[in-house]
Amino acid sequence: MISAGCAAYGRRDGLSGKELFNEALEEMFSHCPKLDRSKVEALYLGQAFESFEHQANTAAGISNDFGFQNIPSNRIDSVSASGGASLRQAVLGILSGTFDIVVCGGMEKMTTKETSEALEIISMASNRPFEQWNGATLTSLNALAARVHMQKYGTTEEDLALVAVKNHKNAFDNPKAFFRKLITLEEVLSSRPISTPLKLLDCSPICDGASALALCKAELADQYDDNPIDIVGSSEASDSDFVFRDELTGFKATRIASKKAYEMSGVQADDLDFAEVHDAFTINELISYEDLGFCEKGEAKKLIQSHETEIGGKLPVNVSGGLKAKGHPVGSSGTGQAYEVFTQMKELVHPSRSVKHPRTALIHSMGGAGVTVQVHIFQKRD
Amino acid sequence: MISAGCAAYGRRDGLSGKELFNEALEEMFSHCPKLDRSKVEALYLGQAFESFEHQANTAAGISNDFGFQNIPSNRIDSVSASGGASLRQAVLGILSGTFDIVVCGGMEKMTTKETSEALEIISMASNRPFEQWNGATLTSLNALAARVHMQKYGTTEEDLALVAVKNHKNAFDNPKAFFRKLITLEEVLSSRPISTPLKLLDCSPICDGASALALCKAELADQYDDNPIDIVGSSEASDSDFVFRDELTGFKATRIASKKAYEMSGVQADDLDFAEVHDAFTINELISYEDLGFCEKGEAKKLIQSHETEIGGKLPVNVSGGLKAKGHPVGSSGTGQAYEVFTQMKELVHPSRSVKHPRTALIHSMGGAGVTVQVHIFQKRD
Repeated sequence: MISAGCAAYGRRDGLSGKELFNEALEEMFSHCPKLDRSKVEALYLGQAFESFEHQANTAAGISNDFGFQNIPSNRIDSVSASGGASLRQAVLGILSGTFDIVVCGGMEKMTTKETSEALEIISMASNRPFEQWNGATLTSLNALAARVHMQKYGTTEEDLALVAVKNHKNAFDNPKAFFRKLITLEEVLSSRPISTPLKLLDCSPICDGASALALCKAELADQYDDNPIDIVGSSEASDSDFVFRDELTGFKATRIASKKAYEMSGVQADDLDFAEVHDAFTINELISYEDLGFCEKGEAKKLIQSHETEIGGKLPVNVSGGLKAKGHPVGSSGTGQAYEVFTQMKELVHPSRSVKHPRTALIHSMGGAGVTVQVHIFQKRD
Repeated sequence: MISAGCAAYGRRDGLSGKELFNEALEEMFSHCPKLDRSKVEALYLGQAFESFEHQANTAAGISNDFGFQNIPSNRIDSVSASGGASLRQAVLGILSGTFDIVVCGGMEKMTTKETSEALEIISMASNRPFEQWNGATLTSLNALAARVHMQKYGTTEEDLALVAVKNHKNAFDNPKAFFRKLITLEEVLSSRPISTPLKLLDCSPICDGASALALCKAELADQYDDNPIDIVGSSEASDSDFVFRDELTGFKATRIASKKAYEMSGVQADDLDFAEVHDAFTINELISYEDLGFCEKGEAKKLIQSHETEIGGKLPVNVSGGLKAKGHPVGSSGTGQAYEVFTQMKELVHPSRSVKHPRTALIHSMGGAGVTVQVHIFQKRD
């Protein structure tokens, strides 16, 4: 990964998703002066929903509007994992020997719609008819996961709230973050119920945003970067829709994908300097601790209570603020995580939220309630 | 390509897009008894619009509903080229060394909506705001291409109509085709104007359908097929949205993609035994003759008048009936073309529309008015 760029997440009135993606591209090219648009051979764009902007086939338009010349350009939809999936396809495209340099990324322009209409669009991420027709939304499915996790493992609403408090704190000095506002445990616990036990401050926001990454063949990276960041693990798995599963308190797709990524890279959870994990809802971060092997099954509550996943702890998680506080413009979230890896490893972030000299990091992108998952592991070459 | 399946195109009341895709899978597995679902390592699904069925992230649901186990599964949207794009990603996935066996395909369930609403959804394939807000639809953009082609090269409405007559004739004995009805030149010319000079019978229909292909590493093909079909050329290109282009009578993305596919395969247009080309509108088939090198620029009218693109001619085109008469369930059309290649090469088609002992074939998938194009060339190994 030789460069990365990110358009600030939030309500970006007056700018289309394409324009936000171009903003991410501009920053990406600024971080890698030796790279220019003529060298890029393919574009993969994560975009979950064409409905927000009434625009499909978005990737080809972006390519040719913003200076790429007739290159293969495709949109990938794996809902909240669309960004992770675009990164995964870019990796495969390079491994295939077909492309030397690929740009991947994602964008979503969600504030075109009122909240109720946006939620109607987002509900397309769940199964029709079995989930949608029964009134199940991603929020209520994750609320169910939270409820069963609480019953089975003694996780509490306070444990969920600790995730939100931590991630808001991490976002405070992140100029790309939507919510740069510290919140207290009490504020989370007293926020409006959305789908019990999940409350407003347990949920990631509807927002706009985009991110872009430049990847190249490993052998070429030295030409563009003095100290390249290698992608040493890349994997993907899927699962049935939530309603069809026996297991409600863990996501098998995360376990399969992370196992493969650890094996491919030789990296173990203990080796990680930080991780960005899917936390569209606070319960997702806790379940991810367990599924990614950061702790044993049922022990996530102890890990969040230990403060070891805060910056300065043993394994900081969601140092960007995560989807919860940086924001969750659906198609962008996965590659936005990789942008955090780039800026942390290049020591471009505010000192208050810097992981000191990180060498190894993991990102975890998830679509639906555990339906599509990609895990990528990054390592600085020296 | 070791197998292929196709759900009949048309109005498939009572069946969801996922169920149609499973119908295609069932046929695909029936053609290759040695292949079973446990051997498939990834799924790529072309689906242009989540809006028809209010369902996104469709690939993972299909995978796990229909017997694949937790495999990487992604939806690709390149509108009418979504099927071609899923085939292209499957090829790259295998070339990357990551997968030995991949299923790719596409589906679209379009008859859930009334025609006016369906056209509103399809309009997302054109640029917002520059095309959509100015009232330009894919039909009117292609009508413009037709009008300029007529002015510049002397192409006539009769030439356009000949494409429709030929493709309806080819579809007549295709059990997968929507329109199994012969039509006359006069009927085409007197059909209702849609966007002048394009008339109703110049346009492909809104319909349901699905198709699926099984690909494997070239070295493994012998284990599954006594006489495998190799994909000897695979390429993709994009272009700006139609409204931004100077050239109205040809599609540069087709020329770039086909040039690469010819170079990669060593196959020339003269070597082709038949071709399936994008004919969502009759003008597209004529323009494709020129861009794919089947004739010189401006000479498509002579080629269609010569009858050499009919079955029995020098280079039969759209022997399936094409998008025009077999049908155009958007996401499926590209891999549906590859299904025709499989069944022709395996001599599974009705004798009346059989290309005798074909060895080499080309398929051409296009999204938008020349915005995204994939070209694939297939060759029987012996």
